[in-house]
Amino acid sequence: MDTLTDPAPLDPSDLVGLTRALCDIPSVSGDEKALADAIEATLRACPHLVVVRDGDALVARTDLGRDRRVVVAGHIDTVPIADNLPTRLEGTGQDAVLWGRGTVDMLGGVAVALALATELGAPGTTPAHDLTWIFYDHEEVDSALNGLGRLARNHPDLLRGDFAILGEPSNAGIEGGCNGTMRVEVRTRGVAAHSARAWTGENAIHAVAPVLTRLAAYEPRAVEVDGLVYREGLNAVRIEGGIAGNVIPDACTVEVNYRFAPERSVAEAEAHLREVFEGFDVVVTDAAGGARPGLDDPLAAQFVRSVLDTAGGEPAPKYGWTDVARFAELGVPAVNFGPGDPLLAHKDDERLPVAQLAQCRDALRAWLLDD
Amino acid sequence: MDTLTDPAPLDPSDLVGLTRALCDIPSVSGDEKALADAIEATLRACPHLVVVRDGDALVARTDLGRDRRVVVAGHIDTVPIADNLPTRLEGTGQDAVLWGRGTVDMLGGVAVALALATELGAPGTTPAHDLTWIFYDHEEVDSALNGLGRLARNHPDLLRGDFAILGEPSNAGIEGGCNGTMRVEVRTRGVAAHSARAWTGENAIHAVAPVLTRLAAYEPRAVEVDGLVYREGLNAVRIEGGIAGNVIPDACTVEVNYRFAPERSVAEAEAHLREVFEGFDVVVTDAAGGARPGLDDPLAAQFVRSVLDTAGGEPAPKYGWTDVARFAELGVPAVNFGPGDPLLAHKDDERLPVAQLAQCRDALRAWLLDD
Repeated sequence: MDTLTDPAPLDPSDLVGLTRALCDIPSVSGDEKALADAIEATLRACPHLVVVRDGDALVARTDLGRDRRVVVAGHIDTVPIADNLPTRLEGTGQDAVLWGRGTVDMLGGVAVALALATELGAPGTTPAHDLTWIFYDHEEVDSALNGLGRLARNHPDLLRGDFAILGEPSNAGIEGGCNGTMRVEVRTRGVAAHSARAWTGENAIHAVAPVLTRLAAYEPRAVEVDGLVYREGLNAVRIEGGIAGNVIPDACTVEVNYRFAPERSVAEAEAHLREVFEGFDVVVTDAAGGARPGLDDPLAAQFVRSVLDTAGGEPAPKYGWTDVARFAELGVPAVNFGPGDPLLAHKDDERLPVAQLAQCRDALRAWLLDD
Repeated sequence: MDTLTDPAPLDPSDLVGLTRALCDIPSVSGDEKALADAIEATLRACPHLVVVRDGDALVARTDLGRDRRVVVAGHIDTVPIADNLPTRLEGTGQDAVLWGRGTVDMLGGVAVALALATELGAPGTTPAHDLTWIFYDHEEVDSALNGLGRLARNHPDLLRGDFAILGEPSNAGIEGGCNGTMRVEVRTRGVAAHSARAWTGENAIHAVAPVLTRLAAYEPRAVEVDGLVYREGLNAVRIEGGIAGNVIPDACTVEVNYRFAPERSVAEAEAHLREVFEGFDVVVTDAAGGARPGLDDPLAAQFVRSVLDTAGGEPAPKYGWTDVARFAELGVPAVNFGPGDPLLAHKDDERLPVAQLAQCRDALRAWLLDD
């Protein structure tokens, strides 16, 4: 589909205004086209960038002949809007807070990247590395749809790099690696019967009792990987059984989500779950391996030092699964670094202290220029 | 709503044909009008009957000045059709089996009643008692909609009688009384959180583990009441919890159905469930008391003797809740007596050995005439 009229480039000079503009173009997964069009127009206005579009994903690269290449990536889709758009700015100056869907996850991070993309590599700037800026679709849904995954299949060369920074919210700190995630269905079967003569049937919901008992008693591990401690989690996220108020249920399904530390592979995670739910029918419905923090990589270590010299603090583990795992799979060390409190992602009261925008932009710019 | 053209009366002389005709007018709960119209036309063609219609329920009464009045009642609605209409007759003569929705529950019993209604009280017959024939709607759904309950509210005088026979399937034997039924929701609450940081939430599905463990371990009673043994049952019939694959669920609900012997009142049943689920939030959503078999009533005892003298066997308890409980509440002793195997009710392969039709009609006719 072509746009009927070319959208105007966005103004990258005002970072708060840019974040608002990005959030106020609704971009729920599957409906990213308008926002991708606006970002494309902004990138194409920069002669120092070579821009490629794939679906609603955009890749913009410098070609400065540097030895190393740094990739900065972020997804442009959001979870559904909860009556929290358009954005609303509360307070003024450095104390202002921007409320609305996408401010945290992760159009704040996208704004930082987009502003720097238009600036670094333009005449008069001297980035230390060549730069690849990636803006992609479909991160908040089924991982088979993920735009970064599609780019890795369609244009693996475009994802090449020596180090990647994913602008996922990390409170402007550095969060290394990520836990893996696996979903399984634990299923029981019974025999349907009229509930007035229950003894002629077998109750599949009752049969699920030991599954829930094991889950309630389960003690999740905390595992140190490359110096960061990853907390695991094993939880029922959905349960469903029964068809009517007078029928003994013949089927019950518990959907379980396992978040596992990145020293464990997907196969090891599955083996563990089969052990936990021994005696039950276990079907894996979704899985994505984690990513080790990779902070021992020289470029990563240098980035961490540069950012934390300014911001203070220590690198922390990322608990949620993020696309750093895709870079890890491609052999590119990657960290999460972006504005916003990850605990507010997907919440109705999603909101961003705007000071983190400039903090992230300035730290990233300083490292990319000063190296 | 009036019918546009008066339907023709049905032919009550061929009992199998009448049963088929009744079944082949689809009459799922809420959609009984066409069948009620046909039954009404058949009853109104009998000068010996006084007919009253209330919604899609019909009451037809003789007025012979007898000392006692016997009520024969049956519901004309069925559960949804499972691609098992129109009816299909397999085999011939006394060995024939009639397949299809409603053959068992309970248009076979309705056919027996309708045939006898047109006959008994007509010139040349001498029924021993005055007779009230009730055909009613909405039995297979929420008890608030039940047509017999509506009649009891709108026309309590029409339900008056000394003994009631409900034509619910009992394999042409006599099933006394019925168990009560109660539905409760056992609910847990938790705190929602992203499943990547489960420790910031509280899992409401895990919290339900003890509820299922208690249900799985529960030993239902078998209670003798007036000489019949009633088996109880306590079962989860539905469970529901969770909203997404990456969210710690903040609510879980187990729907539980308790079938309790008729010596226990609704209040006693509730107290028992609150004891079983102590420590949990229990909400009663539906309840109907049972009915003692009442076979010590003189008219009931005489009926039982008369039927079993021919058919053999012993009275048995009715496990499923039936509208005999409504008559019991009105002080009218009532039994279940009708063609068809109750275990086939609501099944896709619902089917009736047609020999039971004549067996029920003949036993009922003999008792009503010979007393």
